[in-house]
Amino acid sequence: MQTDNSRASEHLMDWLRDAHAMEEQAETMLNSMVSRIENYPDLRERIRQHIDETREQQRLVRECIERRGGDTSTVKDLTGKAMATFQGFSGVFASDEVVKGALFGFAFENLEIAAYSQLIEAAKFVGDTETAHTCTRILQEERAMAEWLEQNSAQLVRQFLARTDAPDMQAKR
Amino acid sequence: MQTDNSRASEHLMDWLRDAHAMEEQAETMLNSMVSRIENYPDLRERIRQHIDETREQQRLVRECIERRGGDTSTVKDLTGKAMATFQGFSGVFASDEVVKGALFGFAFENLEIAAYSQLIEAAKFVGDTETAHTCTRILQEERAMAEWLEQNSAQLVRQFLARTDAPDMQAKR
Repeated sequence: MQTDNSRASEHLMDWLRDAHAMEEQAETMLNSMVSRIENYPDLRERIRQHIDETREQQRLVRECIERRGGDTSTVKDLTGKAMATFQGFSGVFASDEVVKGALFGFAFENLEIAAYSQLIEAAKFVGDTETAHTCTRILQEERAMAEWLEQNSAQLVRQFLARTDAPDMQAKR
Repeated sequence: MQTDNSRASEHLMDWLRDAHAMEEQAETMLNSMVSRIENYPDLRERIRQHIDETREQQRLVRECIERRGGDTSTVKDLTGKAMATFQGFSGVFASDEVVKGALFGFAFENLEIAAYSQLIEAAKFVGDTETAHTCTRILQEERAMAEWLEQNSAQLVRQFLARTDAPDMQAKR
């Protein structure tokens, strides 16, 4: 267990800020997706549910940051760049928009899974059990979303391809 | 089962080309990571192994494309953008370079997992069992790499944080 002035503690703070920025970006992306999907109601409904979870996750991460004496005003450069990119993916896609949305959505959920897994270890390392506990709770929600996307991937692709070959049907979203 | 002139077949070709570009980018990223890591030999060795797998995957995907009458000269815009971004992540990071490398590496493996899962469904949809078979084989390698990163994540974070707080030790890579 490290002291609170350790460089490990500084990394934990940086990673919490990264996670907060990631959740803000997730909300933007998911809102964009949910507003565009027309023909895939199951996906739309699951995303809607995850938007609520994402807002609560932002609040929980912010609490961890503030309890450790930090604030959410600054984020690391890299995260900013990563987030801006994922935002780009959430916009208007080509003719396979919904399929690419599911693809990048799954990658993004796994980015979150890796981030919270690292945060849990860092929190344990510096002895912050409350942050470890919070990140474990969030991790479960991210895993559930990733699993849903994985389990529904095959059906989504089949639906998309069937619509794409059917006359007078819109497939892309 | 669809005819080979279907729009479903066109999507399959586009997605195979996306996958080929993704594997080329993966090789660039992994080479960059492996050349920079100094203090994490297990990670470096696993990445080295995956570089060999990645080169073979490129060849396998190219075979699928050519067997279906296409070539690898053009890729979709979106993939190009996504790949350029991931390439950015593979460069020099801040003081937590190795940890962020593992984070984005895991997200990238899951992007590949989702892409091959979609490809398997699309190949089955148009009745191309050979492409489905190839993508299933590649998917297993991507899953194995993602699982390795996940299983070694906690130890990597602990090693990194321990090095970061130790005097005269380089932690970042």
